[in-house]
Amino acid sequence: MPADLHAFAVAGMPEVSPGDDLARLIRDAVERAGRPIAEADVFVVAQKIVSKAEGAMIALADVHPSSVAERWAAAFGKDPRVVEVVLQQSRRLVRMERGIIIAETRHGFVCANAGVDASNVAAGFVTTLPRNPDASAAKLRDALRAAFDRTVAVIISDTFGRPWREGAVNVALGVAGLQPFLDYRGRADHHGRRLQTTVIALADEIAAAAELVTGKTCRTPVAVVRGAAEWAGEGSGTMLIRSPSTDLFR
Amino acid sequence: MPADLHAFAVAGMPEVSPGDDLARLIRDAVERAGRPIAEADVFVVAQKIVSKAEGAMIALADVHPSSVAERWAAAFGKDPRVVEVVLQQSRRLVRMERGIIIAETRHGFVCANAGVDASNVAAGFVTTLPRNPDASAAKLRDALRAAFDRTVAVIISDTFGRPWREGAVNVALGVAGLQPFLDYRGRADHHGRRLQTTVIALADEIAAAAELVTGKTCRTPVAVVRGAAEWAGEGSGTMLIRSPSTDLFR
Repeated sequence: MPADLHAFAVAGMPEVSPGDDLARLIRDAVERAGRPIAEADVFVVAQKIVSKAEGAMIALADVHPSSVAERWAAAFGKDPRVVEVVLQQSRRLVRMERGIIIAETRHGFVCANAGVDASNVAAGFVTTLPRNPDASAAKLRDALRAAFDRTVAVIISDTFGRPWREGAVNVALGVAGLQPFLDYRGRADHHGRRLQTTVIALADEIAAAAELVTGKTCRTPVAVVRGAAEWAGEGSGTMLIRSPSTDLFR
Repeated sequence: MPADLHAFAVAGMPEVSPGDDLARLIRDAVERAGRPIAEADVFVVAQKIVSKAEGAMIALADVHPSSVAERWAAAFGKDPRVVEVVLQQSRRLVRMERGIIIAETRHGFVCANAGVDASNVAAGFVTTLPRNPDASAAKLRDALRAAFDRTVAVIISDTFGRPWREGAVNVALGVAGLQPFLDYRGRADHHGRRLQTTVIALADEIAAAAELVTGKTCRTPVAVVRGAAEWAGEGSGTMLIRSPSTDLFR
């Protein structure tokens, strides 16, 4: 375990538009902030700016709501075009009640509104999740590695609600350059007993730590988490999606 | 938002036994480690040592399994006495299948085995969750405040699994001296649009950050998270339990 962990927000990121070079924007902001990047730093990048840069945005004017979207929207005071986008982004609806849609996305994430979001987006648009968050993370990792001449890792994150607990927490959708799990299985505790089920979702905990220093209303969609060098390696965010065959709540 | 967040493990904690003065053990370890405590530091303390100090341990020799515990244990190769303790600690069983018990505890937490755990406990014993984690946190906060002459906060934490995602993450069971939520509702994004549902489970994210610097096999059940001063205040871990009336998965 690292003795210390350190997280800081990358201040001064500009508004991101389709086609923008995220690695360049991040490098420029980091340099303006005068915070040198270290070997094995983890960049935690909000899904929202990745979606914007990749053009994963939908103009509501182009959306034609289905009848189910129309009825649901009318019942709960929603925009039927937004509901339609949610349905289109879903592989399966896990819950659809009380005005809330918990959906399984085409990637396999289970989250509210299939990750479709209108906050911090220009009026008339919504963002959808990146098409392949692991690929987005790998591409950004390569570009940041080149930009900083350091072997860094990247997590593409989003805040998800949870059953049973109030409030959302930041989780890792896409991962590159980092082992997503800390696996204690088979290790002994200090009574010499084998630990049973102790796999820690490391990438999710790093995303959570990063969220503490960023802010949804402060234009700081990027944070750096330092102290994770021992977990450098290969892995993906897809590995964090529980297989339907072992999921008791899907 | 704090510009920076810093977490470190408190090395050198001894084995904890019933009746031990946790605040004194933590103070001694912190002083030996030579790490000064700052105003508004958050101590994240693993549930396991709180349970041990409070005597929330059960000798399996004293447990008489019910017939349902016997049958379940036989079917899945479990210790029937441990299964019996799990049932006794439960208010309701949310799932009981494939050898897995997801239970709602008497506090309202939903977790595997109702928080009953045999790891890092002497053979023949299991720990149960603290009877009142918020009261445990408040008591420890008061004692640590006196020990360090600093206004600190305390989180009593445990690692919980999640539906839909692999791996466990550390969450806050008991909270004292800290606002458990960051509530962005009603604030505007930078397009001037009101943010809809954005309540962040701050205490859970701090617990997650702490978990990154502690380790289940390394005898470091205590971490300090620094940089949370703006969230000092009053709150509880109970507030993080989603009300059954708004929970779609309970």
